[in-house]
Amino acid sequence: MKATSFDGKTMNYDNDYPDPKSGEVLVRVNLAGICGTDLEILDGYMAYDGILGHEFVGTVEKAENSNLIGKRVVGEINAGCGSCESCKKGMDRHCPNRTVLGILKRNGAFAEFLSLPEKNLHVIPDSITDEQAVFVEPLAAAFEIKEQVTLQPQWSVAVVGDGRLAQLIIQVLKLTCPNLTCFGRHASKLESLVNSGIKIKIGIEPSDEQSFDLVVEATGSNSGFADTMKLIKPRGTVILKSTIASRENLDLTPTVVNEITLIGSRCGLFKPAIDALASGIISVDSMIDSTFPLEKFSEAIKHAKKPDTLKVFLKP
Amino acid sequence: MKATSFDGKTMNYDNDYPDPKSGEVLVRVNLAGICGTDLEILDGYMAYDGILGHEFVGTVEKAENSNLIGKRVVGEINAGCGSCESCKKGMDRHCPNRTVLGILKRNGAFAEFLSLPEKNLHVIPDSITDEQAVFVEPLAAAFEIKEQVTLQPQWSVAVVGDGRLAQLIIQVLKLTCPNLTCFGRHASKLESLVNSGIKIKIGIEPSDEQSFDLVVEATGSNSGFADTMKLIKPRGTVILKSTIASRENLDLTPTVVNEITLIGSRCGLFKPAIDALASGIISVDSMIDSTFPLEKFSEAIKHAKKPDTLKVFLKP
Repeated sequence: MKATSFDGKTMNYDNDYPDPKSGEVLVRVNLAGICGTDLEILDGYMAYDGILGHEFVGTVEKAENSNLIGKRVVGEINAGCGSCESCKKGMDRHCPNRTVLGILKRNGAFAEFLSLPEKNLHVIPDSITDEQAVFVEPLAAAFEIKEQVTLQPQWSVAVVGDGRLAQLIIQVLKLTCPNLTCFGRHASKLESLVNSGIKIKIGIEPSDEQSFDLVVEATGSNSGFADTMKLIKPRGTVILKSTIASRENLDLTPTVVNEITLIGSRCGLFKPAIDALASGIISVDSMIDSTFPLEKFSEAIKHAKKPDTLKVFLKP
Repeated sequence: MKATSFDGKTMNYDNDYPDPKSGEVLVRVNLAGICGTDLEILDGYMAYDGILGHEFVGTVEKAENSNLIGKRVVGEINAGCGSCESCKKGMDRHCPNRTVLGILKRNGAFAEFLSLPEKNLHVIPDSITDEQAVFVEPLAAAFEIKEQVTLQPQWSVAVVGDGRLAQLIIQVLKLTCPNLTCFGRHASKLESLVNSGIKIKIGIEPSDEQSFDLVVEATGSNSGFADTMKLIKPRGTVILKSTIASRENLDLTPTVVNEITLIGSRCGLFKPAIDALASGIISVDSMIDSTFPLEKFSEAIKHAKKPDTLKVFLKP
């Protein structure tokens, strides 16, 4: 099959990469999205080699369950062992022996085909386009916040960050919390939010400090974490939505002194995200950037790395 | 009055220090305790100058409320402004303009007298000795965990640390969670726990990793935080009970990947601590070390700094 693969140092295109092993559902990839995590892996953030890509929509090519064949699907990216304590509780996403599509010991979506267990797949309604469907995975990660915290409509809420994930998080939070401020760095990225009723700020003013009940950190940088800790009220709740790559100069003292609750938040269940796209309560259309053929992966990644780029797709 | 005071560099004894200002209740200090925070302030951990000491028991000397005069009292250490959002919610402990006894803009207990607002004071029953009463403040900090988390009896719980606060936390958690392990560094400190039914471990074995529902970090060191993150189950809850002085090499990645909840925890309300000491469900007698006269503060602090020392008292 056609595939790109990462050897830990560089990404290469191959017309004759081995097809995924059998025993799982075989999916022909229609469209894959490039995510910040892909860019971080390419920058050496974690040890992974193989085919990257974990945001995708595809068509089932082979499956034991014949009803699935020909269906358009998206897929949850964590595959658990099925027998550990986490898996038995339905927490495959936290199985210590899990594989993760395009991230951990499992080839991903920047290829003609991928395979996943049947239970990971969700059929996508016709009303959702391919481009929209690729957003199901990151949108599910945004909806995960609602699984972890009981949002209160009267809360004053801040999102720190203006990237693709931050913008999805803002849309999800706005469903419950109208009093919402986005603290960004790039005015250009936030244009689509200007008429949405969300307050947009570049930089923190003294009156913003300790004034938010909930703050979502979606930058993954030390300075974003420091800003988050400035904004949160004593006894408030912080959602850490990005892994913070650097270990230096992270000050946890305010967490203790102000009795903050920090909640790490990763992947979410797909159903609420699919429902939200199908019903139109969440729109991702303003976040679509451009599509590159798979063999032009190198140009696509270069484009995705630019600060103002929104979602970039690869088409096998 | 007799007092010791810290000028930001050294601690000095003075026979003729000005008495506390009027307008609050004047308390004659019977006995004060030396806490880890005092030692950290002396080591330059935070900018404070004045009289140190925030664990005390005393006798009311002057008060507007004549019923209080002659009563034996302990005192909550945070004094709020009374008018901000935090104070209005009863969260004086998080008032941005608060003073804190012996820690922030308010002279403390290593002196003949101290003053506090009347509402901060709690009369101590006769059944509690002076030495025991000094433990009310740190014991309240341990009880604060129960205010923040609904402890489940079936949980597997770990406390990382073997110091004075860790030992109080262990006693409080054991009231609800019998399956309790203490990860310490000094076997000698943990002798009093050997026959208590608590598992004691020096160092983490591979089978301990990701096996605790709740972990309390009570070391205040980077390595204690790293150990804590090894022990906690995915989606588990970590209580940060000590400020972590260093900002370097703190890895928050597992917090996000494993969706851990980190809860900062500081001072607690005094009532549950007083009740627990009065009823005898918590015993602090094995944690009493020795008492020094106030003028021998220098020897007392030297002794308190030794790793195996339990609670050291100063008597004005």
